[in-house]
Amino acid sequence: MHWSRWGNPDLAAPLAESAFALVDTFIGTRDTPAVEAADVQLSEPLAAELLDELAGIVGAEHVLVDHDTRLHRTRGKSTPDLLKLRRGDGSDSPDAVVRPADHDQVAALIDWCVRRHVALVPFGGGTSVVGGLAAEREGFAGVVSLDLIRFDKLLEVDHISMTAVLEPGLRGPAAEALLAAQGVTIGHFPQSFEYASIGGFAVTRSSGQSSAGYGRFDSLVVGLKVATPQGTLELGNSPANAAGPDLRELVMGSEGAFGVVTAVRVRVRPVPAVKAFESWRFETFAEGITAMRTLVQAGLLPTVLRLSDENETAINLAKPAEVGGEHAGGCLMITGYEGTRAAVDARRTACGSLIAGVGGVSLGTEGGEAWAEGRFHGPYLRDSMLDVGVLVETMETVTFWSNLDHVYTSVKDAVAASLGEGSLVLCHISHVYETGASLYFTVAAKQEEDPLAQWLLAKAAVSAAMVRNGASITHHHAVGRDHKPWLAEEIGPVGVQMLRAVKKELDPTGVLNPGVLIP
Amino acid sequence: MHWSRWGNPDLAAPLAESAFALVDTFIGTRDTPAVEAADVQLSEPLAAELLDELAGIVGAEHVLVDHDTRLHRTRGKSTPDLLKLRRGDGSDSPDAVVRPADHDQVAALIDWCVRRHVALVPFGGGTSVVGGLAAEREGFAGVVSLDLIRFDKLLEVDHISMTAVLEPGLRGPAAEALLAAQGVTIGHFPQSFEYASIGGFAVTRSSGQSSAGYGRFDSLVVGLKVATPQGTLELGNSPANAAGPDLRELVMGSEGAFGVVTAVRVRVRPVPAVKAFESWRFETFAEGITAMRTLVQAGLLPTVLRLSDENETAINLAKPAEVGGEHAGGCLMITGYEGTRAAVDARRTACGSLIAGVGGVSLGTEGGEAWAEGRFHGPYLRDSMLDVGVLVETMETVTFWSNLDHVYTSVKDAVAASLGEGSLVLCHISHVYETGASLYFTVAAKQEEDPLAQWLLAKAAVSAAMVRNGASITHHHAVGRDHKPWLAEEIGPVGVQMLRAVKKELDPTGVLNPGVLIP
Repeated sequence: MHWSRWGNPDLAAPLAESAFALVDTFIGTRDTPAVEAADVQLSEPLAAELLDELAGIVGAEHVLVDHDTRLHRTRGKSTPDLLKLRRGDGSDSPDAVVRPADHDQVAALIDWCVRRHVALVPFGGGTSVVGGLAAEREGFAGVVSLDLIRFDKLLEVDHISMTAVLEPGLRGPAAEALLAAQGVTIGHFPQSFEYASIGGFAVTRSSGQSSAGYGRFDSLVVGLKVATPQGTLELGNSPANAAGPDLRELVMGSEGAFGVVTAVRVRVRPVPAVKAFESWRFETFAEGITAMRTLVQAGLLPTVLRLSDENETAINLAKPAEVGGEHAGGCLMITGYEGTRAAVDARRTACGSLIAGVGGVSLGTEGGEAWAEGRFHGPYLRDSMLDVGVLVETMETVTFWSNLDHVYTSVKDAVAASLGEGSLVLCHISHVYETGASLYFTVAAKQEEDPLAQWLLAKAAVSAAMVRNGASITHHHAVGRDHKPWLAEEIGPVGVQMLRAVKKELDPTGVLNPGVLIP
Repeated sequence: MHWSRWGNPDLAAPLAESAFALVDTFIGTRDTPAVEAADVQLSEPLAAELLDELAGIVGAEHVLVDHDTRLHRTRGKSTPDLLKLRRGDGSDSPDAVVRPADHDQVAALIDWCVRRHVALVPFGGGTSVVGGLAAEREGFAGVVSLDLIRFDKLLEVDHISMTAVLEPGLRGPAAEALLAAQGVTIGHFPQSFEYASIGGFAVTRSSGQSSAGYGRFDSLVVGLKVATPQGTLELGNSPANAAGPDLRELVMGSEGAFGVVTAVRVRVRPVPAVKAFESWRFETFAEGITAMRTLVQAGLLPTVLRLSDENETAINLAKPAEVGGEHAGGCLMITGYEGTRAAVDARRTACGSLIAGVGGVSLGTEGGEAWAEGRFHGPYLRDSMLDVGVLVETMETVTFWSNLDHVYTSVKDAVAASLGEGSLVLCHISHVYETGASLYFTVAAKQEEDPLAQWLLAKAAVSAAMVRNGASITHHHAVGRDHKPWLAEEIGPVGVQMLRAVKKELDPTGVLNPGVLIP
């Protein structure tokens, strides 16, 4: 991963001229380059005697303090994170990076952090977009990044139960490659898939682009092993049970604040023989929403189901390589089907018939395939925009169907009110449930003198619009530090007390990822 | 509900002669009648000045201390509960029964219990089979049963989101009747359906006989309102989200120990136009299990899917009215389909073809319909057996598919070792998941001099066999007091710390259902 941009910028397709033309016309561009990596100011490395103690736990070759290693583990990939790094602010860098080999070393590192009162930030893929990697350093003797890169093994595949145990440091492609060799897949493909990690998926309640077919990541997790300051927590002897509150659901979404996940047992499915994508056009977003709701409430879902609103369809954001190019008008829906040939054909026919019956016009397979081709490339667009003085960020929420239009309108109004009429708001729905759906917004505006301050005001307005209108502060991005103020409003004072009680019990000195999640 | 028997015994079909003959031959019978209701020794009623204070909160007509009212809220319906009442032991009776009208009155009652240090036991349907209603009274100034009978309203139906908000005191039939008038159903039909309550379903993670089609109750709950000593907790703005740990999952399974649920928002589905049942025969339990696993892992499930092992099939327990009668031999599978005519036909054809393909022999519709007819009557059988000196109880667990046979064998061995070779163990699977399934055991043996002590030894042996062989202490019966010792083993010391921390935070003086759940 690049230190101040998404992924591997060399592999990114160049931005289409049409996109630049569009942005130039509607927003205006100017050069806003980033500083050089070497010029980013990082924190002071951890003191030598502390490094020696860490070396005693994981070996000297796995304790790193060089500029490059620490820079690459500084913050995540939100627009505020990138804006700070682009202007040379590395103040949230870890003071050292440690790379434990196994659960016992993680446990020993946690004990050490408690003893030395050093903050510990678990690091998987580094793709957080909610400030989940920027530890609160005040009051601590230092900040250590616990890099899970050596947790890269597939520990077990149970072909009878169709489960697999994976180590948390496995990135999406590596995990899927190991599983594919056994004929199985998790089917979890969020936009961050190429860089995000198994552990990160679990502790942030990630949801992938194929969630309609495979389910949210939290619904796929059946077991967890967690190192905490109080000892090891092992959960998951069954798919579901009635043995009290489901503590797996307390670990999921805990973002490293309760412990470090060292193994994850997930549900797996056979590798699909066929993947087929197609696209549809609806006159209006509302009609497309009705189609989605009809599908899911009929128990008839494609593996992938997405719907862009009029703006996102017009900009052509569903095809990052062709932004600003020709489009079909109305609202674009992408459907994808995975499974055996017979299952795909049957499902596709049934869904297609329903979609056509509620106003969908088939656009064939080209648009769906183009989306699938570029499905992980969206974030590269943002970097290109940040280079030319345009502020771009995404935000997402989820609510019940009957409240969806109200939240959609409220968020758009909040963006317009805070970023001005020249700003652009695009939206799509990419996760549906019988009772509701997500809303995923992409916002663009001209960068003001201080784009960070500009963004934080807009973010606050949008977040308030979500929570105060009965939606969640986040559908799949998690809480981190950026959503924390609104989490308190969402779960109320008693909910906050519950989280604080667990935090205090498991991590009484507060060294685990301090500052995230817990209001 | 009868005070020492299940449901309304007058409505129970008389036990078939064949059943008596069977029991007489294999176990032997003798008369073991219960005492009269008036002869059960209850606790002392709450002192008059405390009753006056309660009357000030809910009105004098809703504070009851008469023998009959208190007797009917004494314990639940486990065999140990019944054995104690049958011999006149009412020592776990509440000292008063209060019937609040609304959330605010519940909140006021909780505050009062904290102030007076009186234990509070929420009472829904009274169907607990795990000691969930037997509060620990030591150290408290008294025990009050908070009867939710006045929480009997359907508060809202959202036909767009397909959700409904129900009050917790609604019993199954009343809830379904109110929903049916709106064209919707929850589809939650546990064996206790006719008497159990919506609130009970939520706080015990109930799972119904149609779970294959509609899902476990916890998977159907999207929102909860809870009165706690710290104030009101309101959760659920969306089907799912990434806003930290899912606190709904902490309330579900909490068995009244964290607060009193005063409203539940559940997912609903259209009332099915068609319900069709049929049955199948497999040579062996193992073959039937493979068929179930194949179905669920193919994503191809009936609404109801059950499989009896050889013993349960031989006894004919799937048809309570015909126990001991003729049977088809091998292992009986029941399948049920609900939905539109077209959906039922399509699903039935697809499932039937798969079942036949893996060795299932169709037995037509008669057996399935007979099961559906008697689906809620199983518990009446137990009372008839307790009358004639036979000890009968059920126990259940859940694990992953690859561990299922091992757990099945281990539990049967544990029963044989503790209850002797003359004991009978029947088993069925009635809840399946992609990764595993439940095991539901019915055990019968001749009552010894002290059947309670006899049973507690067997229960301990079986519970240990479950947890130590990697299964859960309970699939859908919950923890209560009876499973508490093994819960600690199942979730480990760190898991116990988490539960205790939440309990201490929400209920620092411990007045909420003391003794249940928290090890």
